Amino acid sequence: MTMVNAFDQARAAQLDAEDRALIERRLRALGPAYRLFYEEPIHVVRGEGCWLYDNKGRKYLDAYNNVASVGHCNPKVVAAITRQLGILNTHTRYLHEDIVNYAERLLATMPPQLGHMMFACTGSEANDLALRIARSFTRRQGVIITSLAYHGLTEAVAEISPSLGDYVQRGKRVRTIPAPNALFVPMEEQGAKLAADLKTAIEDMRKDGIEPAALIVDTIFSSDGLYPDPAGFLKPAVDLIHAEGGLFIADEVQAGFARTGEKFWGFQRHDVIPDMVTMGKPMGNGFPISGVAIRPDLVAEFGVRARYFNTFGGNPVAIAAATAVLDVIQEEGLQENAEKTGNFLKEGLKALTAGRQDIADVRGSGLFLAVECVVDRQTNAPNAALATSLVNNLRRNGVLISATGPGANILKIRPQLIMRQAEAERFLEAMEKALATAHLS
Amino acid sequence: MTMVNAFDQARAAQLDAEDRALIERRLRALGPAYRLFYEEPIHVVRGEGCWLYDNKGRKYLDAYNNVASVGHCNPKVVAAITRQLGILNTHTRYLHEDIVNYAERLLATMPPQLGHMMFACTGSEANDLALRIARSFTRRQGVIITSLAYHGLTEAVAEISPSLGDYVQRGKRVRTIPAPNALFVPMEEQGAKLAADLKTAIEDMRKDGIEPAALIVDTIFSSDGLYPDPAGFLKPAVDLIHAEGGLFIADEVQAGFARTGEKFWGFQRHDVIPDMVTMGKPMGNGFPISGVAIRPDLVAEFGVRARYFNTFGGNPVAIAAATAVLDVIQEEGLQENAEKTGNFLKEGLKALTAGRQDIADVRGSGLFLAVECVVDRQTNAPNAALATSLVNNLRRNGVLISATGPGANILKIRPQLIMRQAEAERFLEAMEKALATAHLS
Repeated sequence: MTMVNAFDQARAAQLDAEDRALIERRLRALGPAYRLFYEEPIHVVRGEGCWLYDNKGRKYLDAYNNVASVGHCNPKVVAAITRQLGILNTHTRYLHEDIVNYAERLLATMPPQLGHMMFACTGSEANDLALRIARSFTRRQGVIITSLAYHGLTEAVAEISPSLGDYVQRGKRVRTIPAPNALFVPMEEQGAKLAADLKTAIEDMRKDGIEPAALIVDTIFSSDGLYPDPAGFLKPAVDLIHAEGGLFIADEVQAGFARTGEKFWGFQRHDVIPDMVTMGKPMGNGFPISGVAIRPDLVAEFGVRARYFNTFGGNPVAIAAATAVLDVIQEEGLQENAEKTGNFLKEGLKALTAGRQDIADVRGSGLFLAVECVVDRQTNAPNAALATSLVNNLRRNGVLISATGPGANILKIRPQLIMRQAEAERFLEAMEKALATAHLS
Repeated sequence: MTMVNAFDQARAAQLDAEDRALIERRLRALGPAYRLFYEEPIHVVRGEGCWLYDNKGRKYLDAYNNVASVGHCNPKVVAAITRQLGILNTHTRYLHEDIVNYAERLLATMPPQLGHMMFACTGSEANDLALRIARSFTRRQGVIITSLAYHGLTEAVAEISPSLGDYVQRGKRVRTIPAPNALFVPMEEQGAKLAADLKTAIEDMRKDGIEPAALIVDTIFSSDGLYPDPAGFLKPAVDLIHAEGGLFIADEVQAGFARTGEKFWGFQRHDVIPDMVTMGKPMGNGFPISGVAIRPDLVAEFGVRARYFNTFGGNPVAIAAATAVLDVIQEEGLQENAEKTGNFLKEGLKALTAGRQDIADVRGSGLFLAVECVVDRQTNAPNAALATSLVNNLRRNGVLISATGPGANILKIRPQLIMRQAEAERFLEAMEKALATAHLS
């Protein structure tokens, strides 16, 4: 499938000479697999807090990037990384106190069943490790995912990432189930439907002689179109995979680290206890670090017989970055801010779109919000043209968001956790203008 | 298989109270999959240049760690990372000049056939991506590796990493061939034997209906026991895999970035042209960055239909780190130093071990050296006890190395590229003492 919000190389002629030349060199050096965002790509040169600046001095309110979640170039994180860079950067085969301190602090945010932390560098690696452990513990191969899931890009996790499109094949050991759907499934039926679909998938898998090792979901269903509500709808499916002898892996790469406001982790909104929790993106505010929290019994045999070493995973500088991020979230009350500013944005977006025939839903949790663009409220058919128009209108007016979902029609709004009232108002003003001038192209 | 040079938890009682308590907390927080080095683990707190310092103020000459290859806490690299951390850290979906500049510089060190650079965070990710591309381009699944290869830890690359032991299963799509062997195969036959073994493996694979997609080797054969000579022995095998319609992937995670002295990349010593080159460890001197250099035609379809995005891969800070490392290697003549100091060390080790019945070989290229410990020169049977004794004796006397190979009997000596004559002499003195007191335990 085509990537939502990708720059189309055919439009290069419309760009200025400097950017056009750089894009040409980039294509030659990096090849055709790399994509740029927006109808007119952004040539970013500087970032600070909620703001990005391009090479022409224009500033952009960043309401998209969830990696630098405590703000671009957060001074406390930069200072912590800089300090540790000058002291030591080795690996986990020497004894070092900081990694133990950090693991203990992070585990304290989880249910007590999750007793160990293992570190890697990317969300892909964390999910790949979780799959390896799930398969080796259960002696089973099957994995169930949602229809448009994204869990990463290694061979094993690309296989469970249908959002990469049909070219990336899913083997027989993978089955998809429909993600929750805010428009076509009544809210009170979401939980039962997800569990019923999981049951069907497990039965289907068994026809091929494959047993379910795990159900893995992004607990905010980001690439599927963002489905946070009703909180608790995950429980019947989690109970079912457990009853069938499989594990539940909560992919918190998107939802984790206070993003959803109400709770520190996305799964906590659903009152379920995962067997493994994977995390990444915002963990080091851009310094590559990821991890898996895990039930100790799952790794008892794997640990002894397969061992684990990730060269850069959890090195002292990565741990310094991650520790500083956790400090900032906790000391600056960013989880509370995500809830408060997120609710303000959600109510604002609802007010701006109330009564519109081309906006079917505004939803979200904390600072992760979605606005669903439709052709009309009778069919609720996806309106990708409207979403594209809004995304690019906002970009031209200095506000960055993107779009998601199977119909490429769902605005993805994901500001830094440090966004406060003033920037939120700025965002709503830009959105109001964009909605006023939006037209089908 | 047991990890060479791992700390045995049963020895914890012999350590001091502080380290024992930390090891206990570490085991509880990180679980049983993590290993520590040495009979007495090192509690490292600081690093500088070729030296590491522990929590008791003892200093260690680092002749093992190839990640911080331009020196622990190299000030130019630290400054470059710090500077960029304060300016911008985003990702490859915005336009940024530095990644293009760096990719062009790196490609200039390669044969012109390798036209694109793709970035990831770890060597595992780089090898995983290379496999995905090889399999999607060739429409084949088979991969041939050496008997004790290590290529990383994702599911797909763990499958081609038999050095992880039997618990990590190799599927039917993987075949192993014996690595070169300095003691049991005459030098002039290494190349022909490797190609003949490859031919047998391909035929065996075809009996299962599997076609060879790629031959992948670490071009210095680090985990197999270090086999650099004779330069050129890879060529017949590379010619064969090409004749059979498969690709040759040079894993340069160990050998790359001037490590082998004579050439910048390990494959260049063998006068072969890989279809893909993967790299990692020393690339950012500890900042997580890795990459794949690739023939453009291999990624033409993959690029368009699968696309590629790695959240942290090639971000502006990673590129700043990697650019600084390349600057330091080039400006400080570290490739020449690796050759010169490496030769000095090799000659010194040969002189120290000449005539010994328990040392069968000293070999290496640049600053990657091996000393093979045997029971006697008649059988050349592996002597793991001697290797362990030497490694731990050196550690107690302030010099860090490790061991490798199927018999756990081959000393692995891999100093920073900045090691000069003075430190090399210090290393040889310590080695002379260790050899003098070494006894079978």
